[in-house]
Amino acid sequence: MGESLTESRTEPALPAPDGQRDTQPRRAAGAPDSRGPIGAPGPGEEHEAVMLLDRARAEVDPVLRAALDSLPGPMRRIARYHFGWEQADGSPAEGGSGKAIRPALVLAAADAVGGPDARKGAVRAAAAVELIHNFTLLHDDVMDRDATRRHRPTAWTVFGDADAILAGDALQALALRLLAQDAHPAAPRAAALLAGCVVELCTGQHADTALERRGPGEVTLEEVLVMAEAKTGALLGSACAIGGLYAGAGEADVAALDAFGREAGLAFQLIDDVIGVWGDPRRTGKPVGADLAARKKSLPVVAAFVSGTPAGAELAELYARPTEKEDVEHIARTVERAGGRDWAQSQAADRMALAMGRLARAVPDPEAAGGLLALAEFVTRRSS
Amino acid sequence: MGESLTESRTEPALPAPDGQRDTQPRRAAGAPDSRGPIGAPGPGEEHEAVMLLDRARAEVDPVLRAALDSLPGPMRRIARYHFGWEQADGSPAEGGSGKAIRPALVLAAADAVGGPDARKGAVRAAAAVELIHNFTLLHDDVMDRDATRRHRPTAWTVFGDADAILAGDALQALALRLLAQDAHPAAPRAAALLAGCVVELCTGQHADTALERRGPGEVTLEEVLVMAEAKTGALLGSACAIGGLYAGAGEADVAALDAFGREAGLAFQLIDDVIGVWGDPRRTGKPVGADLAARKKSLPVVAAFVSGTPAGAELAELYARPTEKEDVEHIARTVERAGGRDWAQSQAADRMALAMGRLARAVPDPEAAGGLLALAEFVTRRSS
Repeated sequence: MGESLTESRTEPALPAPDGQRDTQPRRAAGAPDSRGPIGAPGPGEEHEAVMLLDRARAEVDPVLRAALDSLPGPMRRIARYHFGWEQADGSPAEGGSGKAIRPALVLAAADAVGGPDARKGAVRAAAAVELIHNFTLLHDDVMDRDATRRHRPTAWTVFGDADAILAGDALQALALRLLAQDAHPAAPRAAALLAGCVVELCTGQHADTALERRGPGEVTLEEVLVMAEAKTGALLGSACAIGGLYAGAGEADVAALDAFGREAGLAFQLIDDVIGVWGDPRRTGKPVGADLAARKKSLPVVAAFVSGTPAGAELAELYARPTEKEDVEHIARTVERAGGRDWAQSQAADRMALAMGRLARAVPDPEAAGGLLALAEFVTRRSS
Repeated sequence: MGESLTESRTEPALPAPDGQRDTQPRRAAGAPDSRGPIGAPGPGEEHEAVMLLDRARAEVDPVLRAALDSLPGPMRRIARYHFGWEQADGSPAEGGSGKAIRPALVLAAADAVGGPDARKGAVRAAAAVELIHNFTLLHDDVMDRDATRRHRPTAWTVFGDADAILAGDALQALALRLLAQDAHPAAPRAAALLAGCVVELCTGQHADTALERRGPGEVTLEEVLVMAEAKTGALLGSACAIGGLYAGAGEADVAALDAFGREAGLAFQLIDDVIGVWGDPRRTGKPVGADLAARKKSLPVVAAFVSGTPAGAELAELYARPTEKEDVEHIARTVERAGGRDWAQSQAADRMALAMGRLARAVPDPEAAGGLLALAEFVTRRSS
């Protein structure tokens, strides 16, 4: 269910709307003093995001490790392998368990609305969100037959489909148990919200598979955007909303935080799809062009299909042909000629602008909103 | 994860320990006035169980239907098909969604401890338990490649593996959302208990698969019993414990109710395995002998393996041979000669005796315990 923000896809790919790169640190785009809806983070802002991610990882890791340690042996082993904490043979690994974007969003949202105490109270919920994310990764990899994640063989390739499915099931249960055992007054609402999000993630994954089975001409851009929001936006939105709940935010602000995360997630997915076609394979977990080779209907590709341009028609023909490796560069150029790349980048900029607007509503103080902003810009522009 | 109590396997298979069938209705075996640890239910008792199941189904169905209706279209369709409420083409079906044993146990336990008001308050929790059960059925069928359930093609054979997995994921989420949205003070503890149970169910399913991969001589009876408790006993135990929680039972009584359900579940599994080898194929959801044809290491089979008898050695040889349909009757006779059938039946009687003892501890009043008793006897002796 969704490309993973924890994958190390790379490159700043989102242009500032004026075509310039904004080199000044900025605290809160969308806030009254911001100079535009979107811009590249300055070194200070990127540094802030990295710091927030490291801090979230440090805060959440003990809860995650304790949760996984509570699993009986075989389930624990699969889960620890998936998190990058163990090798397939059970020996310890220096884990690349991902960037902790979602826990960082939970904690940053709690902090933005309620300050450090609220942040501290939301650590368990942040871990729950990360467990849900990892449950969906385990299952998605089985369904999509993806063989690599975080530069390692996926769990199903090592332990088999059945055990990867079971480990995913167990992680969902652990996530909701963490919240059920959390005495914080927001925990039941957070649990209900997160469980509802799981349903949306499932629906998004279903839609993705269903769309892949249809011909190029039978898929609309709206359908792919709705799917991407469910697959990727929903959990980022829930992360922000749950942070707000733990900080005692009112209903409207929780909804605005949810919308902020959703729009930022959609911006991320657009950029991720762009990187998936044109990015640097040495710096991503997946070979570039793999989506094209697999004839995936990613966002820029569908935009190209529906462009009504000669290049779009050519692309549909190319997609109908049997997969050949040498096609990939030509296909990428065709998507670009049909406007798929430009559309995805400007659509991402629009989504980020919407995200900023929602953030400004939920957290009017630019200083307080800074962490969430830095994280949102990091995921759509990250260079490491 | 686990044979389903909702499967319509048949035949009273558990002998009274003295070899006689007890024809008098009895309110609470294990209670001071009971005449033995186990006995066949009289017509009144069986009638009571059927009544309790019908009533539980009637109480829980609206909650289940509302929960499934909250799913987006595609997930709803798969879930409703699985529950037997829809045909594969989406037209309505007269559903055989199972006997509602688990919800009936939740409600009977609540009633036994806290009376009708407690029962009424536990309906949502009863529906949550049934959703968890169905989530595991959807996933188990995918993993085990089982093609038939409740006399219909399993969901994965109709909708594909991916969608069956996703629908299962969504049902787990719905279950825990029902509890998260339940204002009853017992709901968080029930949710934590149920989530812990999911982990145990996953572990049991994993153990089952792992045991099947090992040779006949490499599996101990203890291992198979532990696996069966996790796969089948755990959720029956949780159902009873959750009913107790909703009725305000103390910790020791909740634990005793859990143990009652577990032991009854193990008795059920033993009997189910016996029926799976020697039962009436016209009255079960599966062909009799299928477990033998698939060389399943069911409880009576493993008991035969480890019997140290010549028939046990012969069985190991038979299991090593390639599967041939005509073997099945001969294999069944060999299991019986090695004592596998007798062991399973007396083990089931022992487990039921243990269950009665635990029940008498949690609910000393035989009148109050009657519903739980009737249900436990029904599942291990059911004739319809």
